[in-house]
Amino acid sequence: MAAYRLQKRCDEEAVFVVEGAKMCAEALTSGFRVRTVCAVAEWLHAHSSALDCEAYEVSPAELERLSNFKSPNQVWMLLERPDNSQFSILNSQLILALDRIQDPGNMGTMLRTADWFGIRHVVCSHDTVSCYNPKVVQATMGAIFRTQVDYVDLPQWLSQSGMPVYGASLQGKRLSTISLEHSTPKVLVIGNESRGISPAVMACVSHPVLIPNLGGTAESLNASVAAGILMNWMTNKE
Amino acid sequence: MAAYRLQKRCDEEAVFVVEGAKMCAEALTSGFRVRTVCAVAEWLHAHSSALDCEAYEVSPAELERLSNFKSPNQVWMLLERPDNSQFSILNSQLILALDRIQDPGNMGTMLRTADWFGIRHVVCSHDTVSCYNPKVVQATMGAIFRTQVDYVDLPQWLSQSGMPVYGASLQGKRLSTISLEHSTPKVLVIGNESRGISPAVMACVSHPVLIPNLGGTAESLNASVAAGILMNWMTNKE
Repeated sequence: MAAYRLQKRCDEEAVFVVEGAKMCAEALTSGFRVRTVCAVAEWLHAHSSALDCEAYEVSPAELERLSNFKSPNQVWMLLERPDNSQFSILNSQLILALDRIQDPGNMGTMLRTADWFGIRHVVCSHDTVSCYNPKVVQATMGAIFRTQVDYVDLPQWLSQSGMPVYGASLQGKRLSTISLEHSTPKVLVIGNESRGISPAVMACVSHPVLIPNLGGTAESLNASVAAGILMNWMTNKE
Repeated sequence: MAAYRLQKRCDEEAVFVVEGAKMCAEALTSGFRVRTVCAVAEWLHAHSSALDCEAYEVSPAELERLSNFKSPNQVWMLLERPDNSQFSILNSQLILALDRIQDPGNMGTMLRTADWFGIRHVVCSHDTVSCYNPKVVQATMGAIFRTQVDYVDLPQWLSQSGMPVYGASLQGKRLSTISLEHSTPKVLVIGNESRGISPAVMACVSHPVLIPNLGGTAESLNASVAAGILMNWMTNKE
């Protein structure tokens, strides 16, 4: 309940929580504006010169009460969410589109994988989990600081974009048998963990592709694994 | 603490826990021997003809105390672990080798992905998380019933196998630039989430490969995503 109230407050104030020594060190050099820091004395002492915000010393027990995790690590921060309105997609070779992804771990892992493959722009359907959910933020391993994430009416956005749209479908062609379109930018759509791509979004998929089920026994791939296979295929195909 | 004692008992008795209506339905048709079932009345009533074991009716509150998960779903089972001693690797085209994988979710997801790509044999270093850890079992989505998982001295196993061994390495060749060896079976090694492949195992890798870091900013890929990309590459390359 306390976590729910904090999340609501974060949405209203357009901030988000980042935790742990490693992620918070990245946050300090990310260019994102830090609103508040709560940290143990040792961390505050080591980082005092880099802080230009409200900073509170907390005990390990207080940090545990603040934290979303079982084993909090030294520091908890509130960061301001960035303003995405200035962004231009013209520089993107590949855009990742997420259609009603629900699991925070999957969402964070997909942003981390996108970061690895140099994908800087992710568009999400409105019913995709918030990229500022604390579990998403942690799972991105810092990609949240390097990726523009927009929430849009996805079928409308895709149909207006005029770009080639790739998406996994059981009716698609096997990856190994198709060539990629030369025109860029392209879009790769990943669908919901259990229900796949929604009908309205599938209607916008110009290039349905298939990762063959070679075993014939598994029902599905994990969404973030499928996303990784497709991102690798679209960025490394020669 | 109770969870720890139960896990220890499961190791001693060579059984493992499976939970939830979907996984338990798969368990009943898997050929694995069911030792004990604890379920709500409705589930027991629906499955009574398929049960040939100790079966206890429990209340939802009792099920919650037994369960490893926040939202238990109707049924909890103890299954006997299979006897792997009869297995022959001669039928395998590709064997997955896991080197000190620690995260149960990653381990389970890798078994699920292996199942998708038709990989039936997984060998693990002794310090890899147990495939019978309840979180691993759930994340396999049923692959645990279709995959032989052995724990071995991995460097010794690899060097005695005489097979081509592929593994991700920063010194490897880019995936898109190499051809696969024709001889089978082959082995694909996946290393620890933060430390990668151990030096003793890396010494057995005959074919180091690289998933290029195109973004240049991310530190690493999630281990199960990297495993998915490599399994897809090794099974679908033409």
